[in-house]
Amino acid sequence: MSERREGSPDLVERRPERGGLPGDRYVRIVRPYKGAFTRRGPGHLVAREEVLAPTTPLGRLVDVARRVLFGARIPTEREIHERIGIFKGLAVFASDNISSSAYATEEIMRVLVLAGVASLTLTMPITIVIVVVLAIVVASYQQTIRAYPNGGGSYIVASDNLGPAAGLTAAGALLTDYVLTVSVSIAAGVAALTSVAPELFDYRVLLGVLFVVMLCVGNLRGIRESATIFSIPTYVYLVAIYGMLAYGLFRAVTGDLPAYEAPADWHPTNAEPLALLLILRAFASGSVALTGTEAVSNGVPAFKPPEWRHAQIVLILMGACFGSIFLGMSLLAGRIGILPDPTEQQTVVSQLTALLVGAGTPYHYLVQVSTALLLVLAANTAFADFPRLSSILAKDGFMPTQFGYRGDRLAFSIGIIALSVLAAGLIVGFGGSVTNLIPLYTIGVFVAFSLSQTGMVRHWWKLRATERGWQVRAAFNGVGAIATAIVAIIVGVAKFALGAWMVLVLIPVLIAIMWGIQQHYRSVRDAMTLERPDTPLPRLSPRVIVPVSRLDRAALYALAFARAIAKDVTAVHIADTAEDADEMQRRWDRWGGGIPLAVVETPYRVLLAPLMAYIDAIDRQDPGRTVVVVLPEFVPRHFWEFFLHNQSALRLKLRLYFRRNTVVVDVPYHVDQAYETEEDPAQISSVSNR
Amino acid sequence: MSERREGSPDLVERRPERGGLPGDRYVRIVRPYKGAFTRRGPGHLVAREEVLAPTTPLGRLVDVARRVLFGARIPTEREIHERIGIFKGLAVFASDNISSSAYATEEIMRVLVLAGVASLTLTMPITIVIVVVLAIVVASYQQTIRAYPNGGGSYIVASDNLGPAAGLTAAGALLTDYVLTVSVSIAAGVAALTSVAPELFDYRVLLGVLFVVMLCVGNLRGIRESATIFSIPTYVYLVAIYGMLAYGLFRAVTGDLPAYEAPADWHPTNAEPLALLLILRAFASGSVALTGTEAVSNGVPAFKPPEWRHAQIVLILMGACFGSIFLGMSLLAGRIGILPDPTEQQTVVSQLTALLVGAGTPYHYLVQVSTALLLVLAANTAFADFPRLSSILAKDGFMPTQFGYRGDRLAFSIGIIALSVLAAGLIVGFGGSVTNLIPLYTIGVFVAFSLSQTGMVRHWWKLRATERGWQVRAAFNGVGAIATAIVAIIVGVAKFALGAWMVLVLIPVLIAIMWGIQQHYRSVRDAMTLERPDTPLPRLSPRVIVPVSRLDRAALYALAFARAIAKDVTAVHIADTAEDADEMQRRWDRWGGGIPLAVVETPYRVLLAPLMAYIDAIDRQDPGRTVVVVLPEFVPRHFWEFFLHNQSALRLKLRLYFRRNTVVVDVPYHVDQAYETEEDPAQISSVSNR
Repeated sequence: MSERREGSPDLVERRPERGGLPGDRYVRIVRPYKGAFTRRGPGHLVAREEVLAPTTPLGRLVDVARRVLFGARIPTEREIHERIGIFKGLAVFASDNISSSAYATEEIMRVLVLAGVASLTLTMPITIVIVVVLAIVVASYQQTIRAYPNGGGSYIVASDNLGPAAGLTAAGALLTDYVLTVSVSIAAGVAALTSVAPELFDYRVLLGVLFVVMLCVGNLRGIRESATIFSIPTYVYLVAIYGMLAYGLFRAVTGDLPAYEAPADWHPTNAEPLALLLILRAFASGSVALTGTEAVSNGVPAFKPPEWRHAQIVLILMGACFGSIFLGMSLLAGRIGILPDPTEQQTVVSQLTALLVGAGTPYHYLVQVSTALLLVLAANTAFADFPRLSSILAKDGFMPTQFGYRGDRLAFSIGIIALSVLAAGLIVGFGGSVTNLIPLYTIGVFVAFSLSQTGMVRHWWKLRATERGWQVRAAFNGVGAIATAIVAIIVGVAKFALGAWMVLVLIPVLIAIMWGIQQHYRSVRDAMTLERPDTPLPRLSPRVIVPVSRLDRAALYALAFARAIAKDVTAVHIADTAEDADEMQRRWDRWGGGIPLAVVETPYRVLLAPLMAYIDAIDRQDPGRTVVVVLPEFVPRHFWEFFLHNQSALRLKLRLYFRRNTVVVDVPYHVDQAYETEEDPAQISSVSNR
Repeated sequence: MSERREGSPDLVERRPERGGLPGDRYVRIVRPYKGAFTRRGPGHLVAREEVLAPTTPLGRLVDVARRVLFGARIPTEREIHERIGIFKGLAVFASDNISSSAYATEEIMRVLVLAGVASLTLTMPITIVIVVVLAIVVASYQQTIRAYPNGGGSYIVASDNLGPAAGLTAAGALLTDYVLTVSVSIAAGVAALTSVAPELFDYRVLLGVLFVVMLCVGNLRGIRESATIFSIPTYVYLVAIYGMLAYGLFRAVTGDLPAYEAPADWHPTNAEPLALLLILRAFASGSVALTGTEAVSNGVPAFKPPEWRHAQIVLILMGACFGSIFLGMSLLAGRIGILPDPTEQQTVVSQLTALLVGAGTPYHYLVQVSTALLLVLAANTAFADFPRLSSILAKDGFMPTQFGYRGDRLAFSIGIIALSVLAAGLIVGFGGSVTNLIPLYTIGVFVAFSLSQTGMVRHWWKLRATERGWQVRAAFNGVGAIATAIVAIIVGVAKFALGAWMVLVLIPVLIAIMWGIQQHYRSVRDAMTLERPDTPLPRLSPRVIVPVSRLDRAALYALAFARAIAKDVTAVHIADTAEDADEMQRRWDRWGGGIPLAVVETPYRVLLAPLMAYIDAIDRQDPGRTVVVVLPEFVPRHFWEFFLHNQSALRLKLRLYFRRNTVVVDVPYHVDQAYETEEDPAQISSVSNR
C-alpha cells in the first residue's frame, strides 16, 4: 500500500484516532458508512444498493416508474444466471430466421409474377436452391460455433483472421442489417395482422412504431425476461403453421385441394419478360430467408454451459424448422396457384390458410396472430445482436464508449435505444411496406456471411498443424464462403436500382466513421498514457484570479477559498462605467482584505471578452504557470430562481474550458448558508496560515 | 490602496521588476496589453474594442452578420448623442397616438352599427367626447412632463406618490398595453394594406409576424436609426391624410360629396337595441384613440435639452394632429354614410378615400400604404417604451436583471425580444383581427393614466409649500384623473365579456409575479450583503477528493493541481468489478505518487451515487470543512469529439453544485498538452513545496 497520510481514504481504520470508541470494533467499522458501503479490504469499499436510493420526491417517482417498467436492478455478479437453454434459445435466436418463412415465399412470387402468372412455376425450384444454400450455411456455421465458443459473430471471425478492414466491413454490413431486421420483421408482422383486420391497414406505420417501442422496453428489462416472453409465440407459431401445412399436404395427396380464384380486378402490374435478371431478383428476394442464421453463432455465450453444444443443436433445429416450412409453403402455394395481392393487404400465408381452413375461422386467426407476434418478436433477435455487436465494437474503440455501458438490468441500454430509433425511422420512412424495405435487406447479411466463412477457412489453415481433419472443416467453410459470396453478388446486382445501392453506399460510410472513431480514441490514449508507470507528479504553481461583481458574502467566500489554496491571488472587477469602477475601488479599499484588485472598464458593456483579455495579459506576463479562475457562484433555494440571476458564469466557464493551462473553480454560495460559523476558533486552529 | 503583494494586478507597474527595460516607458506601459487595454489609473484598465474581436472563423462570420444587421457597437459614453429633437420626437413618440386615427372612427362605427344604420349618427358626438378627454389628458400630462424631466411614466409617478402597490399596478397595466399596442397597430397596418391588396388577406397573420420581426431588428439597432426610419412615414401620412380630409371637407362645403352605396350583401350582423351599454361600448372602442399619449412623458430624457420643453411641444402637436384628423374622419364618414365592412377586408379610411379620389388611384394607394407603414411603425413607440419600463422595473428589482442590460447598440435587447415574442404570439392567437384584439386594449392604458394623474395630484399637494400655483396644476391633474378613471370603468364594464376580463385577470397576476421577483432579489441581497464593510475573510480548511477513472496524464495533472492547493488529498476510483478494483489498486501502488487511494466498487454499474455517498461519508467524519472535488477533464481537439467521451463529469458537477460547502474544480487536460514541460527546473524552483 502507498504511504498513508492525513486524509487517508480508509475511513474505517482512521476512526479511532479521531475519538472513536477503542475496543468497540463494530462501531468503528460501520459508523461512517451508515449502510452505504460494505468494506472488502483496506481502502476498498463496495457500494450497496442503498446509495442509489433517490433523495428527492421527483427522483423517487422516476425510480418507481423505472422499476415498474424495467424491473429491479441486477448486480453485475448475477450475470451468469441470465443464461438460457435449448428451448428458450430456439425462441430467442431462431425466431428471426424461422419467421422469415412468413414472407419468403411471397417475396419470390411477387417478383416472378411480374413476368406473368405462368412464371410462378419457378417458385418451387428457387425455394429448393435457397434451402440448399441454407444447409450449406448451417453446416459452415457449425464449424464457427465450435471454433469460437465465446461468440463467433462475423465481425470477430473476420477481424481475427482477415484483419480489421474485413472485420469492419462485416460489422458495418451487420449493423445495417440488424436495423433492417427490426424494420422488415415488424412491417411483416403488421402485414400479417392487417390481413385479418383490414381496418388497421391505415395505421400500419403507427402500429409498427408502437411494436418497436414495446420491444425497446422489453429489452431494457434484460435477457431473461425477454426469453420467457418470446418462447410462447415461437412455439405457438410452429404448432399452428405445421398443422396448417400438414392439413394442406394431406388434402394435396388426397387430391382435395381447394380451388383458387384470382380477384376480379387482378392484373399483372407490369408485364416484363422472364429474363435471367428477373429470376435472379426472385432468388435475391427469397434469400432474405437466410437472415438470422448468424444470430446463433453470435450469441454462443448466452447459452448455458456447454455453450457451443447447445448452440450447435439450436442452429440445426432452426435450419430444419425453417427449411421444412419454407418448402411446404412454396409447394402448397404453387399447387393451389395463389397470386400475391398487389395492394399488400393480404399476405400469401393468409390467403393459403383462408383457402384451406376458411377465411375468418378461429384457425385462420390463430395462424395470423401467431405469425404477427412471432414476426414482431423476431425483431428481438436484432435487439439481442445489435447492442452486443455495438458493445464489442465499443470495446475495440470503433464505436463510442457509451455503447459498452450496461444499465441497471445488465442490458446495453444505448445500443437498444439507438436500434429502436433507427428501425422506427425506417418504418416511417418507407411507409411500413415490406416490399419496399426488402431490397435493402439481405445484401449486408451475405457480405458478412461470406467474410466470416472466408475467415474460417483462414482459421483452419492457421491451425493446420494442430487440428486434425482441418481440411474437411476448411472445405465446409470454403463452400459456404463461395455460396454466400455468389448470393451477395446476385443480390447486389439484381436489387441495385431498387435500393441495394443505399446499403452499398452506407456500408463504406459506416466503415469510415468507425475507423475515424478508433483513430480518435487511439490518438487520445497515446496522448494520455503515462510513459512510465511511476511518472512523478508535475509541480504546478497556480496563480489565482477571482472575478468579483459585488463585494458580498458569495465573493468573500470565494476570495477566502482562493486564499486558502494559493498565495498569488488577484481579484478582478469588470465595470460598466468609470463611476462604477471608482466606487468598487473605494469599497475595496475600505474592506481592506489584503487581496489586490484590478478594475477593468468595459465601454461596450460586454463582460466576457475583457475578462478573457485580462487573463491573457496576466498569462503573457508570466507564461507557463497554471491560471486558476475562482468563480463565486450564487445558488438560489429553488430551481426556477436561476432565471433571475445572470448566467454569464456559465458562458465564462465554457470559454475557459477551451483555454490551455486554465483551471476553473466553482465556489457555490447557498443563499441560506451560514457565514459566521467558519470563524469557529476550533477550525481556525486546524488551518495553516497560508 | 490596499496592500500590494505578489501577483499585483497592475501589470504595468510591475513589469520593470521582472526584467523590463527601465527608462523605456512606452514599452513598459503598453507591452503586456498588446492593444487590449488603456490604462486609466493604478489598477484601473479600460478595455478597448479590440478585445471583442472574435477569434474563430465562425465567430467572425457571426460578428459580421451582427454588424450588418444591427450596426457598429456604440460605447456607453456616446449615449448623450442619441437624443432627438421635436421633428423626430413627433415621429417617434406620437406615431402611436396619431396612427390610432386610422381605426378609431371605424371601431366606434362597428359597435354602433349593431343597433342599425340609423345609430351611426352617434359617431360624431362620441368622437367629440373622446377628443375632449384627449385634451384633458394632454393638459394633465403637461404638468407631469414639467415635474418629471427625467421621465414621468405612470409607473414612476404612481410609485413615487402613491407607493409601490399603485406603481406596480400601473406597471402591470402598461406592460400589457405595450404588447397590445404592437399587436393592434400591426394588425391594423396589415388591414390597411389588404384593403388595397385583397389577395394578401389570407396571409395577414404571416405579414403581421414579419412586421414584428422587422421592428425587432430595427430596434436592436438602437434609437437614432429608428427615429430616422420613422420620421418619413409619419410625415407622409400626415400630408396624405390632411390632403384627403381637406379635399373631402371642400366637397362637403360645396355640396359635392360622392354618393355611397352599401354593398349588396350587406346586412347588420346582429340587430341589438341602441341601449346605453352599446353607446358605452362604442365610446370604449373609440377611446383606443388615447393610447400612446403616455409615450411622450415616459420618454422625456430621450429629447435634446431642454428635454421637458421639447416634450411639452411634441405632446401638444400630437394632440392637435390626432384630434383634427379624428374629427375630420368621423365627420366625413358620417356625412357620406359609410358602413364598416363586416368581413374586415376594407377599412373605413380606405372606403372614404376610394369614394373621394377613386378606388385604385395613386392617391388611394398613397393613403393606404402610408397608413400601413405608419401603423406598423407606430408599434415602434411600444418598442421604445416596453424595454425602457422593463429596465426601470429591473433596476427596482421587479423584473429579472437581464432586462436592465444594454446590448452592443445601447438598446435593452432582452426587453425588445420579449416584446416581439409576446406581440407576435397575440397576432397569431387572435388571427390578426383588429376587432378581436381591441377589447383587450385601452383598459390598461386608462388604469395607468388614472393612477398617474392621481399621483400627480398628490405630488402637487406635497409641494404646496414651495410651488406657486400648485392649486391650478393639481386641478388640471385632478380633472384628468377623474376623467380617465371614468373611462377605465366604462371600458372595463362595457368590454368585460368581450375580452377585457383577460386583462383584468392578467394585471393582478403580473403584479404578483413582479412582487415575488422583488421579494426574491431582496431576500438574496439581505442574505448576501456584508454586515460590516470590513468583514474579515473566513478561514477555510479545504480537503480535496480527486475522482480518478484511469491513471493517465489527465489524472496526474489533476492530482498535481490538487497537491498544489492542499495537503489533504484523496483519490477515489469507482470500480465496476472486484477485478477492476484490484487492478487499480496495484497500478496505484506501482505508481507510488504519495497520494492515498480509495477504491469503491459499484455492483450496479452506477457511477455517481456511490461517489456522492463516499463524499458524504468523508464529510460526516469531519464536518464543517469545505470539500473540494477536483475533476480531471479531458478536452478533445474538436467539438464533435465530445460525444465520444463520457459525459458523467457534467452530471457530477450538477449534483455537486447543490451540495453545501462543496467546491468543484475542473482541471481540463488538452489532448495535445505538453506534459513534461512542467518539470522545467526554473519553474520548480519558484514553487513552494507543499
